[in-house]
Amino acid sequence: MIAVLKNGTTDAQIENLSNWLKEQGLDVHISRGTVHTVVGLVGDTAKIDAELLESLEIVDSVKRISEPFKSANRKFHPDDSIIKVNGTSVGGDIFAVMAGPCSVESEEQVMEIARAVKAAGATMLRGGAFKPRTSPYDFQGLKADGIEILLKAKKETGLPIVTEIMNANHLPLFEEVDVIQVGARNMQNFELLKELGRTRKPILLKRGLANTLKELLMSAEYIMAGGNENIILCERGIRTFETYTRNTLDLSAVPMLHELTHLPVIIDPSHATGVARLVKPMALAAAACGADGLMIEVHNDPAHALCDGAQSLTPDTFADVMKATRQVLEAVKEN
Amino acid sequence: MIAVLKNGTTDAQIENLSNWLKEQGLDVHISRGTVHTVVGLVGDTAKIDAELLESLEIVDSVKRISEPFKSANRKFHPDDSIIKVNGTSVGGDIFAVMAGPCSVESEEQVMEIARAVKAAGATMLRGGAFKPRTSPYDFQGLKADGIEILLKAKKETGLPIVTEIMNANHLPLFEEVDVIQVGARNMQNFELLKELGRTRKPILLKRGLANTLKELLMSAEYIMAGGNENIILCERGIRTFETYTRNTLDLSAVPMLHELTHLPVIIDPSHATGVARLVKPMALAAAACGADGLMIEVHNDPAHALCDGAQSLTPDTFADVMKATRQVLEAVKEN
Amino acid sequence: MIAVLKNGTTDAQIENLSNWLKEQGLDVHISRGTVHTVVGLVGDTAKIDAELLESLEIVDSVKRISEPFKSANRKFHPDDSIIKVNGTSVGGDIFAVMAGPCSVESEEQVMEIARAVKAAGATMLRGGAFKPRTSPYDFQGLKADGIEILLKAKKETGLPIVTEIMNANHLPLFEEVDVIQVGARNMQNFELLKELGRTRKPILLKRGLANTLKELLMSAEYIMAGGNENIILCERGIRTFETYTRNTLDLSAVPMLHELTHLPVIIDPSHATGVARLVKPMALAAAACGADGLMIEVHNDPAHALCDGAQSLTPDTFADVMKATRQVLEAVKEN
Amino acid sequence: MIAVLKNGTTDAQIENLSNWLKEQGLDVHISRGTVHTVVGLVGDTAKIDAELLESLEIVDSVKRISEPFKSANRKFHPDDSIIKVNGTSVGGDIFAVMAGPCSVESEEQVMEIARAVKAAGATMLRGGAFKPRTSPYDFQGLKADGIEILLKAKKETGLPIVTEIMNANHLPLFEEVDVIQVGARNMQNFELLKELGRTRKPILLKRGLANTLKELLMSAEYIMAGGNENIILCERGIRTFETYTRNTLDLSAVPMLHELTHLPVIIDPSHATGVARLVKPMALAAAACGADGLMIEVHNDPAHALCDGAQSLTPDTFADVMKATRQVLEAVKEN
Repeated sequence: MIAVLKNGTTDAQIENLSNWLKEQGLDVHISRGTVHTVVGLVGDTAKIDAELLESLEIVDSVKRISEPFKSANRKFHPDDSIIKVNGTSVGGDIFAVMAGPCSVESEEQVMEIARAVKAAGATMLRGGAFKPRTSPYDFQGLKADGIEILLKAKKETGLPIVTEIMNANHLPLFEEVDVIQVGARNMQNFELLKELGRTRKPILLKRGLANTLKELLMSAEYIMAGGNENIILCERGIRTFETYTRNTLDLSAVPMLHELTHLPVIIDPSHATGVARLVKPMALAAAACGADGLMIEVHNDPAHALCDGAQSLTPDTFADVMKATRQVLEAVKEN
Repeated sequence: MIAVLKNGTTDAQIENLSNWLKEQGLDVHISRGTVHTVVGLVGDTAKIDAELLESLEIVDSVKRISEPFKSANRKFHPDDSIIKVNGTSVGGDIFAVMAGPCSVESEEQVMEIARAVKAAGATMLRGGAFKPRTSPYDFQGLKADGIEILLKAKKETGLPIVTEIMNANHLPLFEEVDVIQVGARNMQNFELLKELGRTRKPILLKRGLANTLKELLMSAEYIMAGGNENIILCERGIRTFETYTRNTLDLSAVPMLHELTHLPVIIDPSHATGVARLVKPMALAAAACGADGLMIEVHNDPAHALCDGAQSLTPDTFADVMKATRQVLEAVKEN
Repeated sequence: MIAVLKNGTTDAQIENLSNWLKEQGLDVHISRGTVHTVVGLVGDTAKIDAELLESLEIVDSVKRISEPFKSANRKFHPDDSIIKVNGTSVGGDIFAVMAGPCSVESEEQVMEIARAVKAAGATMLRGGAFKPRTSPYDFQGLKADGIEILLKAKKETGLPIVTEIMNANHLPLFEEVDVIQVGARNMQNFELLKELGRTRKPILLKRGLANTLKELLMSAEYIMAGGNENIILCERGIRTFETYTRNTLDLSAVPMLHELTHLPVIIDPSHATGVARLVKPMALAAAACGADGLMIEVHNDPAHALCDGAQSLTPDTFADVMKATRQVLEAVKEN
Repeated sequence: MIAVLKNGTTDAQIENLSNWLKEQGLDVHISRGTVHTVVGLVGDTAKIDAELLESLEIVDSVKRISEPFKSANRKFHPDDSIIKVNGTSVGGDIFAVMAGPCSVESEEQVMEIARAVKAAGATMLRGGAFKPRTSPYDFQGLKADGIEILLKAKKETGLPIVTEIMNANHLPLFEEVDVIQVGARNMQNFELLKELGRTRKPILLKRGLANTLKELLMSAEYIMAGGNENIILCERGIRTFETYTRNTLDLSAVPMLHELTHLPVIIDPSHATGVARLVKPMALAAAACGADGLMIEVHNDPAHALCDGAQSLTPDTFADVMKATRQVLEAVKEN
């Protein structure tokens, strides 16, 4: 970490700062320029709060050289993490595909979709039981009953299930859930992250709409700091000025995260675009740039179901996406 | 609400849609153009999920004419809400000023600052006991002990206290807290909002870094839907591409929110800019454009305190800001 | 186009507005609701200025149903446009690859790169002669000499050349240039666009850093309105809050633009990411989601050349990207 | 300027880099850490292209300590610049108010408005003769005739005039124009900026919708590098995700720019918000935070004129804004 001091900083102030930094266990190297003095910090700088340091009156600016995340950092864990999920996994050779309805609506619906996505090659069943909705007047999900329905589908099809948690107090309901999803709006709900760090469940952590990759990794770090290293990262679109798509899918996050971290990265093209017609091209693009998997919304009868999201595919279209994705994965593997 | 149907929609599909909408209790007006058919919906459209409607295969786009928020909507509550806070208030004639340290560090620190900000004219004492930090390795606050210290300062100075909640399970600790703050990162932590809706405490709801004013009002609506109408809105900067300031303070939010809602709106220039030197000009600008108050970080000894935010003022500078703010308020009142 | 009128608009005002709109040659349909009156406009609404209409005191909001672009609109030109470029083309079956150095530095440099990218399968040579630089103190390009060098490389290799124009007064220098590039910063330099509309040269129009797809198409429309329909669109990353990459590549623009327009769409992964290591995965993703081509920076000796951009590949790496891209294109073609 | 080298950089590479930097006339200080080597550069680093340096394979990242703008930099020119404009000025003690119609429509219109804004206290008349419009089918302005009309109004009222240029070839038409405006979309039209640098006319440079303050200052630098130091900066809203206002007015730009540069800064609340009702509160806020002036759209008869922008005030409302602004200016001056 480097701190550039302001012009006019006195020797006494520099020594004062230097002593404080040494007390934090860091080596401090000071180099005086004609205009600015630069303080170099060596050691475990992750515990230094860069924003606080930058706020000091004598400090002009601070630059981190090492990243502030440790457990998630590929530097200290060069091999890809493979997250085991009840008979399948995310990361490594398996391309994970989590498919299913946005909201769990009924047993019949979930069963039908579960069978269809399994037949098409999905590796897990996803479905929302607790639904975060912008409006308190919108449907909030079937909650505990929704989880019950997902567990029935798991029993029948053998597909592990993925579903979102919104409140750490609901954890007992997630006992048999295979992957617990943290939604974009809760990516910096640090209290929830800490509780999930106390479990050993695989956690699917979605990037917030306006969060940087660094913040995503710091949120993973919250969970890992508690001892739970089973994290799957998910890029699902960020908020920009473009309005033709609901969000802007940031696919360069895939190779960039693969550089920064050993954790697997999956893509949710359904939420990212909000347009069912764009799910296939974006799924293929995700496979081409090295994503470890996909999360795709599938609905049994979009024409009829009025509570269906614009981003939902029918089982037939999903099967077509799966076929094309496999072809792209083959092509990419060859080189 | 208006739904524009896609070119080529059949009469049967239109009737199907129309029947479904009527079942939701709405009046449906259909007007067929040469290219598009437009469906007008009259009635309580707040309960219609626009995103879901837009997702239907036959729907091209949806436009809300009425806003989806009801309790917060000025249309149904034309008079300004005045939120009473233990002897003072926010909204109406009183210009609320919540001042104090970013983090509660010690009793001595808080007492000294509390006395100073009271003398300078603050109407409430703010201070962080539970601190949301991007990194799990950064200081997380004194927690329950921090609240104890704030309560001592309240007892001595008579200033009501404002402090942030991060977990609904901590509510019992907030029994004697006067205003409970919901931080920017929790603005869409709907589970927390619902719990706060069950209390009758004044809630200071901060706008999320990447949230629209409509989303802010929908989050207020979550709390109000539970019966707690004591909401104070707070603009604290949004995330943009500009890097000289930490965030971009959106002051046009003040008059715009005043149009849309009857709830009071305060400004936090400290977090918005992240630069102590900008707090005064932005505080004056907030007063000039009609804000109902300010939230300002004040620290007793920034030169020494290494855990001080760049955005903190000293008590002396704060007193200067207060004086200038009063002059601007006088000038604005005259016209 | 639909205009929603404000509550309280008088009949006289409505008739006034209606008459004015009819004078513009539009059919006007008025439907009065209990709260709002909605005015539907049918006809050539592209010439109506939505922003102006929305600004009227009696108008609450305006919604376009048809898009404001005509010549670029796929609705009126369902078949893909194929832009012919001196023996090759962009759009249709050919996957166009424009490769070459960011800046033309010397004849030797350009010749070497031109031969290498041709051997690897590039269909055109790109290189900057006029360089838009944020700072007036940075290297501004070899200008006319740079174009001369590109033309020599064209003569030797037979590769058509692509280079950027910054000033319509330079057009005479572009006589033998095959594709004229309009850079992101000039996407809304309407005077330049109009001049290019008077030529019949293929124009490579890059999306501005903060411009929507609709604005990109309106800028294409400026050129097409002058009679030049030879437009190639290029997505090269948009400005967001993310800092690990220089910009955020918006790949969903590819299928979305393909829906909206008949013009071909290429991707520039070099400028979008600013990171050479990300060029390959993003090139593959672009190919997978249906892009009509790529624009890639290639430099002969990045280790030595100090004026080389972070986004530049060596000829060897470029050849590897080309090979992998062809495999992905094959895989995608199969389905 | 500081460059952090990548882990594993060899001594030969470091020497190679060091030699190249010394050839550019810089002093080079190298400090080797256990992990990273840091290269400090002292001297005229403005001519070093940070992006190019960062792109080198051995460079991890680059940090500028001094700003890359020189002529605009307050460090080298501590006193406020006062831009003289034909009998009045911008900067210093005078609060400049440029008022007038968005588009020049007719002599009658401009005369009426010019008289009204003069009576209310405007110091200059603004009006658009050349209009940058997103759509080629929208009204493009009266052009040369528009400038003629403005000059007549100038002759009658004595108000200096401000109008926008879109093409350097039009410069002869601007002979008697007092302040030449560069619009937001042309902020990085470097060819235009260079031409304006060759004149000695006061230039009103508007910040681009997605441009940082640093980029704004670099664009000012383009003009100043040509010898024209008469620059007035204008903040007119930036593009964000918020949709209730057309853009987001970044008022913290005022004190921040005042720190960074000696050039005067004015605010355009009309374009920034796109909502006439917000012009007054934002004008007051601008005055309160230290802006050097305002640019405000005023229209003679918004109710009738269908080509009037949502952001236009009537002369009466403008007079009211002026009165209130003066009161705020008085209040601010007192402290």
